[in-house]
Amino acid sequence: MTEISIREVGPRDGLQNEDPVPADDKVRLLDALSLTGVRRIEAVSFVHPKAIPQMADAAEVWQRATKNPAVRYSALVPNSKGAERALAAGFTEIEVVVSASDTHNRRNVNRSTAESLDDIAGLIALLHDAGASAEVIISTSFGCPFEGDVDPARVAGIVDRVVADGADRVAFGDTTGMGTPRRVEEVVGLVRDRHPDLPLLLHFHNTRGTALANILTALRLGITEFDASVGGLGGCPYAPGATGNVATEEVVHMLHDMGYDTGIDLKALLEAARLAQGMVGRELPSGVLKAGPRLPF
Amino acid sequence: MTEISIREVGPRDGLQNEDPVPADDKVRLLDALSLTGVRRIEAVSFVHPKAIPQMADAAEVWQRATKNPAVRYSALVPNSKGAERALAAGFTEIEVVVSASDTHNRRNVNRSTAESLDDIAGLIALLHDAGASAEVIISTSFGCPFEGDVDPARVAGIVDRVVADGADRVAFGDTTGMGTPRRVEEVVGLVRDRHPDLPLLLHFHNTRGTALANILTALRLGITEFDASVGGLGGCPYAPGATGNVATEEVVHMLHDMGYDTGIDLKALLEAARLAQGMVGRELPSGVLKAGPRLPF
Repeated sequence: MTEISIREVGPRDGLQNEDPVPADDKVRLLDALSLTGVRRIEAVSFVHPKAIPQMADAAEVWQRATKNPAVRYSALVPNSKGAERALAAGFTEIEVVVSASDTHNRRNVNRSTAESLDDIAGLIALLHDAGASAEVIISTSFGCPFEGDVDPARVAGIVDRVVADGADRVAFGDTTGMGTPRRVEEVVGLVRDRHPDLPLLLHFHNTRGTALANILTALRLGITEFDASVGGLGGCPYAPGATGNVATEEVVHMLHDMGYDTGIDLKALLEAARLAQGMVGRELPSGVLKAGPRLPF
Repeated sequence: MTEISIREVGPRDGLQNEDPVPADDKVRLLDALSLTGVRRIEAVSFVHPKAIPQMADAAEVWQRATKNPAVRYSALVPNSKGAERALAAGFTEIEVVVSASDTHNRRNVNRSTAESLDDIAGLIALLHDAGASAEVIISTSFGCPFEGDVDPARVAGIVDRVVADGADRVAFGDTTGMGTPRRVEEVVGLVRDRHPDLPLLLHFHNTRGTALANILTALRLGITEFDASVGGLGGCPYAPGATGNVATEEVVHMLHDMGYDTGIDLKALLEAARLAQGMVGRELPSGVLKAGPRLPF
């Protein structure tokens, strides 16, 4: 049975894109997720509290959470200041971000992709010096709302660069839900050819309904690592009512039906999704949360 | 470029599972859909008005709709009385239904699947005598809420029977959204082996997020005919808030991105989806309707 490594991103990417919830709730959600059998959790980000107030209490939340030794926890950082905070908090798996689209990168951090890549080279060195691993998340890998389809060769070139700079892992972010099976084949196919042994994780949004079709396409290309967000927590920054992160329950439900091993207890995961739904006070988009699994437990 | 035949089922299957809308609205929706380039539309059903008041005005709606000669229209009937009404209204493509699950069939029509198949043999003969074609829709083909996974051999046996009885086409209904890529491979694979030339149409619900993954799986098995409902019209009979029929826009959006030809103008389809949304007075589940296509028109 093939093992699939799901990284649960609800506590970080999910809650960061919802109205702020109290630290107590964040700790409860982290603790519930740590007991689902999930193998990886993106716990918090260390970003500027004025830019992202939802994560202002990251250090406190992380300090109070009950760590499960069977789970790999990670944190996202935007720069060296964030990296120092994450390291001080005890994280040893750290993610940094760059956008494949120059326009998107400039709008986010007022720098070109090339300038950000220079920064990232320094960040990777800083993290390695501190004994932590560094994952580079390449956002807008499957399309940019400003530039449209980013050339797959450009995405592959960014991978070449960060691998040369020592990145331990690479993730492709489907930042605004533009991923499609065609796009997955083009981008992942090219990068897989050039870096067959590079740990590669895919992060899909279900904005246009394609998330599970994209994951199915990626599985056939040999990808075994995916991000997903409990309940589909995370909404969508630009379209009210639209869906952001693919719901972890939907991913797990399909993968288990296909005979893949995620380690996750779907029943416990659904309980965590109900907890998350109560915290944000709105109906989350997860179909499996609404309708239950196709077969009773 | 491979042609994919989408059958738009919003006016029938969609509206039948929503609160009733006036005949005027039904005519407007049919007329809007007839101008989208879609090649097939399931227009109405001729069912008992006490059982399904949403379709009580089927003959009037159909009479008033502007027929586009480039579109194949069909109607669904439950029995010979409905078939006579559909024929009298001028339909020449007619659908009948049986459930692959005996329990589901008994709950719906108080008869066993075998008894319904005997009825259907008579219906096919009646339709053929009147010069109409007969499609048999096999519901719960991908799973039954009472029985769980129906044996694929049982589904294939039903296909054998209705083909022997003269069915012109067969459709598999994913009645409560239990379809998964595994299940599609099992059921469609077996039937395709036994009836390689039988026109086979698949009807998916997106209840648990798998609809586009199922369609992707079916495309790889050579299936080129799919039902879909404008805006995702149709809701879900048993779980409030859950999604029913896969949204036509989501199917078309993915298929066009993959290079398939559906004949449909996505912009005109989105206008029809907005019309449908206004009629039912609630936000429809279509992601492409909410967020727009991945690339601007």
